[in-house]
Amino acid sequence: MDIAPYCHKAHFYETDKMGIIHHSNYFRWFEEARVDFMDQIGLPYIVMEEAGIHSPLIGVACDYKSMVRFNDRVIIHIKMSSYTGVKMAISYEARDAVTNELRAVGETRHCFLNSNGKIVNLRKVNKEMHDILQAWVYKEE
Amino acid sequence: MDIAPYCHKAHFYETDKMGIIHHSNYFRWFEEARVDFMDQIGLPYIVMEEAGIHSPLIGVACDYKSMVRFNDRVIIHIKMSSYTGVKMAISYEARDAVTNELRAVGETRHCFLNSNGKIVNLRKVNKEMHDILQAWVYKEE
Amino acid sequence: MDIAPYCHKAHFYETDKMGIIHHSNYFRWFEEARVDFMDQIGLPYIVMEEAGIHSPLIGVACDYKSMVRFNDRVIIHIKMSSYTGVKMAISYEARDAVTNELRAVGETRHCFLNSNGKIVNLRKVNKEMHDILQAWVYKEE
Amino acid sequence: MDIAPYCHKAHFYETDKMGIIHHSNYFRWFEEARVDFMDQIGLPYIVMEEAGIHSPLIGVACDYKSMVRFNDRVIIHIKMSSYTGVKMAISYEARDAVTNELRAVGETRHCFLNSNGKIVNLRKVNKEMHDILQAWVYKEE
Repeated sequence: MDIAPYCHKAHFYETDKMGIIHHSNYFRWFEEARVDFMDQIGLPYIVMEEAGIHSPLIGVACDYKSMVRFNDRVIIHIKMSSYTGVKMAISYEARDAVTNELRAVGETRHCFLNSNGKIVNLRKVNKEMHDILQAWVYKEE
Repeated sequence: MDIAPYCHKAHFYETDKMGIIHHSNYFRWFEEARVDFMDQIGLPYIVMEEAGIHSPLIGVACDYKSMVRFNDRVIIHIKMSSYTGVKMAISYEARDAVTNELRAVGETRHCFLNSNGKIVNLRKVNKEMHDILQAWVYKEE
Repeated sequence: MDIAPYCHKAHFYETDKMGIIHHSNYFRWFEEARVDFMDQIGLPYIVMEEAGIHSPLIGVACDYKSMVRFNDRVIIHIKMSSYTGVKMAISYEARDAVTNELRAVGETRHCFLNSNGKIVNLRKVNKEMHDILQAWVYKEE
Repeated sequence: MDIAPYCHKAHFYETDKMGIIHHSNYFRWFEEARVDFMDQIGLPYIVMEEAGIHSPLIGVACDYKSMVRFNDRVIIHIKMSSYTGVKMAISYEARDAVTNELRAVGETRHCFLNSNGKIVNLRKVNKEMHDILQAWVYKEE
């Protein structure tokens, strides 16, 4: 199964006085795309939360390739670039929905916490989630 | 005792493509000023939270009088305009720190919830907090 | 013609530590709905901007009726409650998309500026825009 | 001359439903620290803007080392890690103001644009700015 890319229309309140989208918003869009990705693979955030599992950020990066402006539609292609049970990396590629021009390339890295805030290995504490996530690690064809 | 006004320096990321501060940020500044006010009257948010009391917003309003731009320093004068034990209203007046020009006039209205999310009367559930808040209701001289 | 309501899915990054959507975000959702409304009536923001007309906020208000949580879908019904050529008021009603429960009722008030930042009467400076806006003022049946 | 670190007190509206500061805000704090840094070295944003020079982000990264919570004071140490006239990299180290515990390590990378949005070499277009920036590149003792 393939993952549908995520579409975000850039909002007026996301612009700054340079007339472009403020860079901090890209990480919010990546989060929107990640939530959508988790829905698509059958492991919604809400389900993880109910199981007492959180996946906080341990690192992020983004390269800005060209500017996004108010009202632009951006398509975000997402894939799980690595997953070990303890850590997960997700990568993102944002392109203009009309021209397909590359806007940004990003990555977020996550660990997993239980409800006590302790770092856990999903392989050990929740085999079902582990199997789903492991199945979605991106493999070059 | 008088309340010291709160100062906020407008950030670049708070601007929008019109080159001015986006209107939604004023409610964030009012929140900063309110947190500072609660500190000053001896009832910090953290203390309220630890006592299991939350004070969510039930209504807000703001009139924008003149524009705030990046790097402007804004002074926010705050007062508790009403308090009943069940509800509280706080009002705000934002002025430019240099020219004293009026920027905005706002109000936030709050109720009180206990840790189960039920609306409570502070007079009944926490007399100590109630007495502090009641003492700070603004009275015209 | 009727206006289609606007749908917003509440994002994780819009929550606060009370576990609900932070109140400042509602004005961002209202803006999203307003941009969509302007598209629907044939007067997109971009077109207004290109004609040198801006419509900054001069006042806002919102009453919060019940809490919105992460992932909730909110339907925003919007209407132009008044319009004079010099000022415009838009009102908003946000309801849960599933239960139809009322979440919030809000209003934004706007004036019109030309590209020099001067307040203008649209009736005089842009009859075409004026006619479109005037045609959409809400009238009780 | 040394650069004074920047202090930010974490706001309620910066928290998310995990009860911690949302990761996207760190880039806003880095921006606050960067604006302050530019003030300290005698090259304020406003002055750069008036000279028609912008310094948009071309890339960012952040590693989150420990969580920041509402009301925590964070001290951000900043330095210009590289500068070539065409590109500039700034690095940031955020520590708790009380415990000195490391919270995050980040970097932002910038280019320079003129008022037409063209990439420029500051060495060629604005020798004065160039000299100031070059003088502040961090050198290991």
